[in-house]
Amino acid sequence: MPSVSDTRGYSATKDQLKKRLARVEGQVRGVAKMVEEDRYCIDVLTQISAVQAALDKVALGVLADHADHCIVHGHGTKTPEENSQELVAAIARLMRRG
Amino acid sequence: MPSVSDTRGYSATKDQLKKRLARVEGQVRGVAKMVEEDRYCIDVLTQISAVQAALDKVALGVLADHADHCIVHGHGTKTPEENSQELVAAIARLMRRG
Amino acid sequence: MPSVSDTRGYSATKDQLKKRLARVEGQVRGVAKMVEEDRYCIDVLTQISAVQAALDKVALGVLADHADHCIVHGHGTKTPEENSQELVAAIARLMRRG
Amino acid sequence: MPSVSDTRGYSATKDQLKKRLARVEGQVRGVAKMVEEDRYCIDVLTQISAVQAALDKVALGVLADHADHCIVHGHGTKTPEENSQELVAAIARLMRRG
Repeated sequence: MPSVSDTRGYSATKDQLKKRLARVEGQVRGVAKMVEEDRYCIDVLTQISAVQAALDKVALGVLADHADHCIVHGHGTKTPEENSQELVAAIARLMRRG
Repeated sequence: MPSVSDTRGYSATKDQLKKRLARVEGQVRGVAKMVEEDRYCIDVLTQISAVQAALDKVALGVLADHADHCIVHGHGTKTPEENSQELVAAIARLMRRG
Repeated sequence: MPSVSDTRGYSATKDQLKKRLARVEGQVRGVAKMVEEDRYCIDVLTQISAVQAALDKVALGVLADHADHCIVHGHGTKTPEENSQELVAAIARLMRRG
Repeated sequence: MPSVSDTRGYSATKDQLKKRLARVEGQVRGVAKMVEEDRYCIDVLTQISAVQAALDKVALGVLADHADHCIVHGHGTKTPEENSQELVAAIARLMRRG
C-alpha cells in the first residue's frame, strides 16, 4: 500500500512520516469533497477507513522509529515506571481512538 | 468535545460534517508540525488518537444522517441483501480501519 | 481462518455463531493458561488479538445474519429513526469496543 | 467497571489478570446464551463490545505489568531493535485486532 520502503517493518524516517501525513491531509480533503458532492455513503465510509489505516501506520511509525526515546527512555525527568505507564496510556488511546 | 449540537446522538448535517472534516484537516497538519518539530512522541501519538476519534465521529455521522439511504434503502439497483452485505462490509472496515 | 463456509460474506447461521463463540471461549481459557504459565507477553498479546478478531467476526455475523431485524426493522415498537440511532450507537461501541 | 483497584493505571497482577480472564470467559458464555435465546441483536452487539473492552483491559494490563520484560528488555536473545519491532508489531495487531 505505501510507496515508501518498509524494510524495517513499521519504522519510518521523519521525512517518510511527513510525506504520509501530507497524503493523509489530501485524503481528508477528498472525504470532504465526497460529502460536498453527496457521494454514496458506503464509499465515504470506505474512504474514511483508508484514512484511519494511514493514520494508524503513522502512529506505528512514530512508535517504531522513536522507540529509543519513546519506549526505552521516555522523558529524562521521569522514572522508568512513569515512562512505562505513559506509553501504555498512549497505546490505550490508540486502541480506543481517543 | 464537538461544538456542534448533538441532540440526535451521532447524526450530523452536511454542513456539520464538512466543518468537522475541515477541523480534522487542521489536526493532521498539526501532527505534521509536531513531527517536523521533533515533539515528544507520546504527545504525537495522543494527537493522532484525537484525529482518529474525530474521524470516527464523522463516520458515525455519515452513517446516522444518511441512515435512510445508507442503511434502509442503499443503492436502488441492489437487492436488500446486497445492500445489507455492503453495509456490514463497510462497518467491518471501520472496525478494523481499512 | 474460520472453518465455516463464507459464501455470503460475513453472514453466519445461529449454529455457526454458537460454534465460533465456543471456540472463542476456548481461546480465552488459552490466554488464562498462558498468563498462569508466565508465557512471553508478546505471545499473550498476539493471542488476545486473535480473540478480538474472532469476536469481531461474531459481531459482524450477528449484524449480517440478522440484518432484516437488526438493520431494517429493529424493534417493532420503535420508530425507524430510533432503530437507526440505536444501530449507530451499537456500531460506535463496536468501533471503540465498549 | 472492574472491581479491582487501579491505583497504578493499567497495571495488573497475575491474579488480577486471571480473575479478569475468568470473567471474560463467563461473558463469552453469556453471549452464546443470548444467541441461543435469539435475543435482540443490538443487545448481543452491546455485550460483545463489553467483552472486547474487557479483553483490551487485559492486554493493557499485560503490557503495563510486564513492562520491564515486555517493553524494555524483551527476549534476552534478541537485539533491542528486534525487541522494539516485535513490540510495535504486537501493538499493531491489538489496534487492528488480529
